[in-house]
Amino acid sequence: MTRALEMAKSAAEMGEVPIGAVLVKDGNPLVEFHNLVETFNDPTAHAEMLVLRAACDMLDTPRLADCDLYVTLEPCPMCAQAISFARIRRLYFGAHDPKGGGVENGPRIFGQPTCYHKPEVYGGMQEQECGEILRKFFSERR
Amino acid sequence: MTRALEMAKSAAEMGEVPIGAVLVKDGNPLVEFHNLVETFNDPTAHAEMLVLRAACDMLDTPRLADCDLYVTLEPCPMCAQAISFARIRRLYFGAHDPKGGGVENGPRIFGQPTCYHKPEVYGGMQEQECGEILRKFFSERR
Repeated sequence: MTRALEMAKSAAEMGEVPIGAVLVKDGNPLVEFHNLVETFNDPTAHAEMLVLRAACDMLDTPRLADCDLYVTLEPCPMCAQAISFARIRRLYFGAHDPKGGGVENGPRIFGQPTCYHKPEVYGGMQEQECGEILRKFFSERR
Repeated sequence: MTRALEMAKSAAEMGEVPIGAVLVKDGNPLVEFHNLVETFNDPTAHAEMLVLRAACDMLDTPRLADCDLYVTLEPCPMCAQAISFARIRRLYFGAHDPKGGGVENGPRIFGQPTCYHKPEVYGGMQEQECGEILRKFFSERR
């Protein structure tokens, strides 16, 4: 999560919303990204989506069994569903997101009866620090 | 929708799940894709996601105002949330999807209080034909 936070800080320096994600396979970090929505003009370029896509490409499979994902903010419904499709084993996230989250807020994607694969979820890791970087980013832009 | 169905048929010929999508801007088709999950080893490579990303890239913006999306199957929660993020004006879909849909089934993404942008939704267009191509595809694989 400390590495994901460093990614988030890099995002802020570029004017991107500071959210970072790291994918870990067999205990080793494999891919890391931060949000790149503005840079790529791509509304789907959330840190989690970029990490999942890059890892699938590297491992030559659309399913990331035995992989865990660390992300600084609770994933939105889009990312939560992609995490399920990619068969992520464990999801660790930092700050909870009552406005945009889709795991423990909003549609609670993994709790839907139609959700086929549900990762183990550990929320609230380094919550204070993960949330603070976002609050600082948005307060400076107001 | 007829063009989206043609895309779905091309997908089936490649062994991809036959779902097609077309993005229309100002009444003109701008981008079309079918599902490419297996080809790209990318669990996020649903027809809708590919269309949204390509259109944003072409128009150099992460927001597709005044654009409408036609897709042969009810979008899943991932695609529904991406459609909201991309600010699609109208969503037309073919077959309803009680098992994997996220618009009129499952988490009903656009009905969530936390969903910021909700497109107009028209479901069930050429429903029979859109559903039949999927049933045929899966029955041949069993």
